[in-house]
Parts: sequence; structure tokens; C-alpha cells
Amino acid sequence: MSHHIISRSVINRLPRYYRFLEDLEEAGMIRISSADLSARMGVTASQIRQDLNCFGGFGQQGYGYNIASLKNEIGKILQLEEKKKIIVVGLGNLGKAVANHIHFEEKGYELVALFDCKESLIGQTVNGFPIQNIDSLDDFCREVKPQAAVLCIPKEAAESLAYQMIKLGIHGFLNFSHYDLSLSYPNVVVENVHFGDQLMILSYRIHNRENP
Amino acid sequence: MSHHIISRSVINRLPRYYRFLEDLEEAGMIRISSADLSARMGVTASQIRQDLNCFGGFGQQGYGYNIASLKNEIGKILQLEEKKKIIVVGLGNLGKAVANHIHFEEKGYELVALFDCKESLIGQTVNGFPIQNIDSLDDFCREVKPQAAVLCIPKEAAESLAYQMIKLGIHGFLNFSHYDLSLSYPNVVVENVHFGDQLMILSYRIHNRENP
Repeated sequence: MSHHIISRSVINRLPRYYRFLEDLEEAGMIRISSADLSARMGVTASQIRQDLNCFGGFGQQGYGYNIASLKNEIGKILQLEEKKKIIVVGLGNLGKAVANHIHFEEKGYELVALFDCKESLIGQTVNGFPIQNIDSLDDFCREVKPQAAVLCIPKEAAESLAYQMIKLGIHGFLNFSHYDLSLSYPNVVVENVHFGDQLMILSYRIHNRENP
Repeated sequence: MSHHIISRSVINRLPRYYRFLEDLEEAGMIRISSADLSARMGVTASQIRQDLNCFGGFGQQGYGYNIASLKNEIGKILQLEEKKKIIVVGLGNLGKAVANHIHFEEKGYELVALFDCKESLIGQTVNGFPIQNIDSLDDFCREVKPQAAVLCIPKEAAESLAYQMIKLGIHGFLNFSHYDLSLSYPNVVVENVHFGDQLMILSYRIHNRENP
């Protein structure tokens, strides 16, 4: 099925819809009205209708949405069925948390390897995967061809590894480092995770609770 | 200095400006034009002028922005000087990464304590702080009065602790759990961090690189 282009702000909201629909499905529900979904998600019903109509309009007036098929359709748009091979680079505490707790297979990925440069970590096993020496990244990527990487390394390490990884065919990054990859490599896609930025935004919002 | 209300989308961009200005300041630069800042940040110059004019217009035509005073002003808006006491709840790998690597004092906070419920963790020291038993949260909060918490705990734990924490005066959360706090407690401010959501968005973008 082909979709017309969906705006970035709608795409950004789709994972949350997906999670809510998943919870409802697990709770045994079959259908939900946009009013009910609206109340549960804290989003206006008109926003929901607008968002979901972007890709074809599921709700039928008076019948609400079929939860399973709506979830399915959002999953297709997000390409969750196409498992992309992903590696985790940097297995400090953050990398370990990522490797242990993220359900990659539910998010559209297959975790295939972990890499670090630290002698004391190499050979350790995290979530069933041995941590490999970063020196073997070239050989590994030529053979296995991962498309994506999670970067749990400091800014300097990310800066010096980026060119190598991209040359090896990695073109999608979940980036925890403070190195702004997408500035130097506009052809790769990068999602940045900056806890620090969110803490600053929270700081503002704590002080401006009356006018949020 | 009082500011008129600034839109959420501008606020969301301020931490990134702040980080860039900090880097420029550390590199010894004094002034920068909006064109130069634009090239370095990958944002249009007109977007930069629009954003920064929201709170008073710093650039003088032909002179550019004074880096230190612009950074200072953004820091004031984000209330980075007002150190809010913050605790970390949950000291698994993720909580340890947060406690060790986030420079809370640069983001508007003072880290004051770590809590967990796991026997094997209680008493361990992370970044100079002993991990305290979650049972002592009440006494601690009554005495020290933290305003904010980082939640590095599973959904169920967050759900059962939220009411207690809010009753104890905590009203700002950096939330790594999948419990949607703000739905039940509209008067607290919450920044959610969902790696999984960002992975799904990345999945979409990997497949739609031609029309990003």
C-alpha cells in the first residue's frame, strides 16, 4: 500500500498512538471511539481524527476505530515489519541499558552485535551478545551489513567513528552522543537523544507552571 | 527581567542554541552573525532571528550576536541559575548512566540523592552518592524538599510511586518509564524520554530517506 507524504509532526506522534493501541489490544478491547482514545491519551479528538486521516481514515462515523487494524496500519507506516539490522556501539551503563531493555524486534530492528573499545568490556556478554572489539567493526559490517547503529559513546568517539560507520553502509543512527552527526552527513538519518536538553526544558517548565 | 510567553516549540529549540553557544564560547569566539550560526547549526538564519527575537532581539544588524550575553540570556530564560533539587529513582544501568554522566548543575539542578528498592544496590555509591532505600523517600523529601525526579524505573513501579512523590512535593519529572504520568497528574510537568519511540521514527525515516 502506498501512502502520500506524512508530515514529520504526525510521524512523531505515531509511536505514541501505537503504544496506546497496543495496550488497549492487550487489555482485550476491539474498538475505540476517537472520543475515548482522546480521553485516554490527553489529545483532542479532532487532533486524533486529523492525524489518523492522514493515512486513509480508519474510523467510521459511529463505529470508532478497529484497534488491531489501526495498530497494524501504523506499524506498516513505521515499517516495523521490515527488520533492520542494528548494532550498539559503546557498552557503558547506558549502552548496557539499551542492549538489555529495548525490544528492538518490536521497533523494526534486529539487534546483531555490540561493540566497544575498552579491554575490560570486550568478551563480556550483554543480553546474550558478546561485546566485540571495535577493531572488528569493518569485517563485521562487510559481512553482516547492518543498516543502523545506536551510539552510546562520547562526542569525540562519535566524531571519529562516524565516517567509518557511514562508509560501511550504516545510514540510520539513534545518537546519544553530543556529536551532531547530521550536520556533517546530511544523507544519513539521525534521531538525537539529549537528556540534558530535556532537563533544561523541564527547568523552564517547572518555573512556568502557571503558563505551560 | 520579565519575558512574554514563549511558544513551546521555541523553548524546545533553546537548549540546542545554548549548547552551540557554549561550544563557541569555549572556542574563544566573541561574536557570531546569524548567517554563521545558521551554517553551523543547520537551521535557517531567518528561523534563528525569529527564535531569538522572541525574547528581546540581541543581534544588531551588521554586528551579529554577542555569544556570551546571548548564552547568558538563554540560560536565564531556561532558569539554569535557579538550582532545583533533583533525585534519581532507580539505579539500574540507565539510572547509573544518568547519575554518572549528566551534569545536573549545568542544566539547572542540584543532584541530592539516589533511591532504589533493590537490596543489592542499596548502600552502593554512584558518583559519590550512596543509593538509599526507597522506604526512606518520605523522610528524605520532608527534610530536603526536592522539586524534581528522574524516573529510571519500570512502568508499574512509576505508577505506584507517582502519587507518593507528588504528595511529597515533587512536581517535575524526567520520565524514562512508560507510565504516562501527566495523564493522571495534569499539574506536574513531565518530560518523557522514550528511546523506543525514537527508534520507530528512525525506522520510518530509514525507509523514506528520499522524502524525509
